[in-house]
Amino acid sequence: MPNPPPGPKIEVPILKDLTIDNITTNVNLINAQAPDARLKYVLERLVTHLHDFARETRLSTDEWMAGIQFLTAVGQKCTDVRQEFILLSDTLGLSLLVDSLSHPKPRHSTEGTVLGPYHVHDAPARATGAAISADPEGEPLLCVCSVATTGGAPIPDVKVDVWETDSRGSYDVQYEDYSGERPDGRAVLTSDAEGVFWFGAIVPVPYRIPNDGPVGKMLDALGRHPWRPSHMHFMFEKKGFDHLITALYLRGDPYETSDAVFGVKESLIVDLGTVTPAQAQQYNVKEGTKLLTYDFVLVTDEETKTLRDEEARKAMEALGRENMRIIEGLPVPDVD
Amino acid sequence: MPNPPPGPKIEVPILKDLTIDNITTNVNLINAQAPDARLKYVLERLVTHLHDFARETRLSTDEWMAGIQFLTAVGQKCTDVRQEFILLSDTLGLSLLVDSLSHPKPRHSTEGTVLGPYHVHDAPARATGAAISADPEGEPLLCVCSVATTGGAPIPDVKVDVWETDSRGSYDVQYEDYSGERPDGRAVLTSDAEGVFWFGAIVPVPYRIPNDGPVGKMLDALGRHPWRPSHMHFMFEKKGFDHLITALYLRGDPYETSDAVFGVKESLIVDLGTVTPAQAQQYNVKEGTKLLTYDFVLVTDEETKTLRDEEARKAMEALGRENMRIIEGLPVPDVD
Repeated sequence: MPNPPPGPKIEVPILKDLTIDNITTNVNLINAQAPDARLKYVLERLVTHLHDFARETRLSTDEWMAGIQFLTAVGQKCTDVRQEFILLSDTLGLSLLVDSLSHPKPRHSTEGTVLGPYHVHDAPARATGAAISADPEGEPLLCVCSVATTGGAPIPDVKVDVWETDSRGSYDVQYEDYSGERPDGRAVLTSDAEGVFWFGAIVPVPYRIPNDGPVGKMLDALGRHPWRPSHMHFMFEKKGFDHLITALYLRGDPYETSDAVFGVKESLIVDLGTVTPAQAQQYNVKEGTKLLTYDFVLVTDEETKTLRDEEARKAMEALGRENMRIIEGLPVPDVD
Repeated sequence: MPNPPPGPKIEVPILKDLTIDNITTNVNLINAQAPDARLKYVLERLVTHLHDFARETRLSTDEWMAGIQFLTAVGQKCTDVRQEFILLSDTLGLSLLVDSLSHPKPRHSTEGTVLGPYHVHDAPARATGAAISADPEGEPLLCVCSVATTGGAPIPDVKVDVWETDSRGSYDVQYEDYSGERPDGRAVLTSDAEGVFWFGAIVPVPYRIPNDGPVGKMLDALGRHPWRPSHMHFMFEKKGFDHLITALYLRGDPYETSDAVFGVKESLIVDLGTVTPAQAQQYNVKEGTKLLTYDFVLVTDEETKTLRDEEARKAMEALGRENMRIIEGLPVPDVD
């Protein structure tokens, strides 16, 4: 018989005879030992909602087991290039919500939207004017964009990640032979002194989120389709500015108002134009080529922080939680 | 450019411009397409609680990503003989709660407790009197138990699954060379005409739940220990009776009131006795051997159903949900 080590002194509630009615309080009490005050708060809300969910649904043992098996399958479907849990979060609206909470946007700045599971960290750096798509089947698209502050000043040297699918609706990483050596439909660009960046791409197409896994089965069971409207992803990074993850959507797409991951915002919907003779000469593309233009507006870290703190304070008031401090936009119990 | 199939006619809310405040309603509206009314209700509660959790914590993008990575690691730790999601559910108190909801117990019946992740479906059937442990280091324990109805009538022919660790605190399935061919510490017994079953075992020891995975890291971060008090698992099955999953705990165990998975109930704590000369002869064991006796009381399916329906109805009233029907103990929206 092993002698269990004495371990840290146990100063916790008496965890015995736990029932439907007292288990939540007691689990929260023992978790309140967490040395990190923020973790303690997050776990308290997590356990409370998890238990309330079970109590309100009277979750059965069979349903619980189905849930365990579903989550296991989601985890096991994940690989280096497929993140099924992000897909689950996206399709339950959590990703959009978390982005909205973390990156609140003042009026007149560019709204954010879901990152999705297809961003990669090692997309190739390309000079402005580069063609990011090698797909001969795609309809050529000239993209001419700019990036400025909320006050209208151009922002130079912004790192701009761009990614889109090929004409078949697949990202490069979705192909079995993807190795990262021949990236397609993605690049990292940099805004110039006038805040401008431009590149050659293809007209985005609608596509299905990968629905051959557990999340696809979930959508089927819910009677939901797996389509995302045509869009192009953009991510902006520059010191002093809030990280902006967004996308532009094409107006008139059949899935414009039923995006499987809830990402479409009116301010991000664009009407494609057509390249004029002057533009054709300036950008060295054929006249009549489809044209996407957009003026992105970034928010400073300071603006974002102020807004986030303000929204967090309001949320704590609405929740009736007193004695909370807001640290870096996050509510944390005020330890005496 | 692919032509997406027209698919089912989309009669869903306009999913555009979703914000912190309106996303939950809209995700629930689109999920309300689910043909199964119970699934629709479960998802509505799930999405509501998931979103409220994010709003109340102002969950940050970094924390969300840490959560995604944690859940992925939990899924990927699962194998045929290790279920890390059950462990997560156990350590968050969900397993005990779900068992209490699904298997309510009237007074004077045996209480249930957590199944844990080490039950197997192919334990060997053994005749009463068998020795289930082959561990020479274990302290021998004679177990003499009975099983009866709430009215006191013995129940014959009950299938009784029993499982415990070896003297080192490990279940057979936890050993790397486990193949199922040499089960140890587990058996399926059958109660006799008097409702009695007895077997040779070893005195249970405290053990750590497997804490080399993500759940162990979570417990560390929370300042919690991973120990379970000494116990032996029992599972009872007989047609007409509610499936009983329970365990007996040894009084005086150092972890009696701090079980990592919240399973201990006073009514399930036993004081071990000592085999008398008469018992030694009757059961063919040495006088002075440790003795565990327990009289289990099963509840009929009918009793359980009545109690479960009653509790579900009360919960719906407390929740202020009208128009719910209770089907097989589960609340389901009453579709007009």
